[in-house]
Amino acid sequence: MIQYLHTMIRVTDLEASVGFFRLLGLEEVRRKESEKGRFTLVFLAAPGQEGLAEVELTYNWPPGDGSPAESYTGGRNFGHLAYRVDNVYQTCQRLLDAGHTINRPPRDGHMAFAKSPDGISVEILQRGEHLPPAEPWASMENTGSW
Amino acid sequence: MIQYLHTMIRVTDLEASVGFFRLLGLEEVRRKESEKGRFTLVFLAAPGQEGLAEVELTYNWPPGDGSPAESYTGGRNFGHLAYRVDNVYQTCQRLLDAGHTINRPPRDGHMAFAKSPDGISVEILQRGEHLPPAEPWASMENTGSW
Repeated sequence: MIQYLHTMIRVTDLEASVGFFRLLGLEEVRRKESEKGRFTLVFLAAPGQEGLAEVELTYNWPPGDGSPAESYTGGRNFGHLAYRVDNVYQTCQRLLDAGHTINRPPRDGHMAFAKSPDGISVEILQRGEHLPPAEPWASMENTGSW
Repeated sequence: MIQYLHTMIRVTDLEASVGFFRLLGLEEVRRKESEKGRFTLVFLAAPGQEGLAEVELTYNWPPGDGSPAESYTGGRNFGHLAYRVDNVYQTCQRLLDAGHTINRPPRDGHMAFAKSPDGISVEILQRGEHLPPAEPWASMENTGSW
């Protein structure tokens, strides 16, 4: 028997990424700091999904010797994290208001893509039927990749 | 409200990746082919977790014009997928018997890492207490990265 636990992503700015996932609607459920390993782990989950489906943020502390902190680029083998929301427009508006880019706006009232501060692509899907087309989304162009 | 749906990864050999995740213990729950979009999507989940926590494999068909198929490299912003299993040794043995490498063997009877055919890192965690140390795992060296 097997059970899914989480998807782990590495972050360069812990509070920036925690903020991004909280805007999506996730909640921090667990945090672990290791002074010896010089890392912090933060687990977030949708309300009610703690222990069932989490995202783990790994923050490796900058070296103490003045050398630069790690930075992370993306690869193509990993695609995205996907979440279903009650109102795709409201979720996108929260991200937009906080300064995030909606790379693929929900023109169809159904699907949007945005990226975490470290470039992790997140798919946001409307629950159930599509919402009626609405501005500013219906005429918003794509930005970059996702 | 928000709900986790899946983590999407891109694969260059659909059956190779389906085989890898089936060895882990996941089951195929849904498959969608698009002739027009020239892609196939396969969704897998742990038994009982269909619709709750899935992995989506995206296979983009090779171009019909003889140009090469896509290939995928990894990035550091994405870390891994993590699963809990009833017996980490048995899961690793199934992968090993099928020719996969256990990059981080479960020397501690608790944690192992392997990679999917397209280099997606997968963490395999023992449910509950650690298993007693056992060969060949206890003396197996690390291989590559994970």
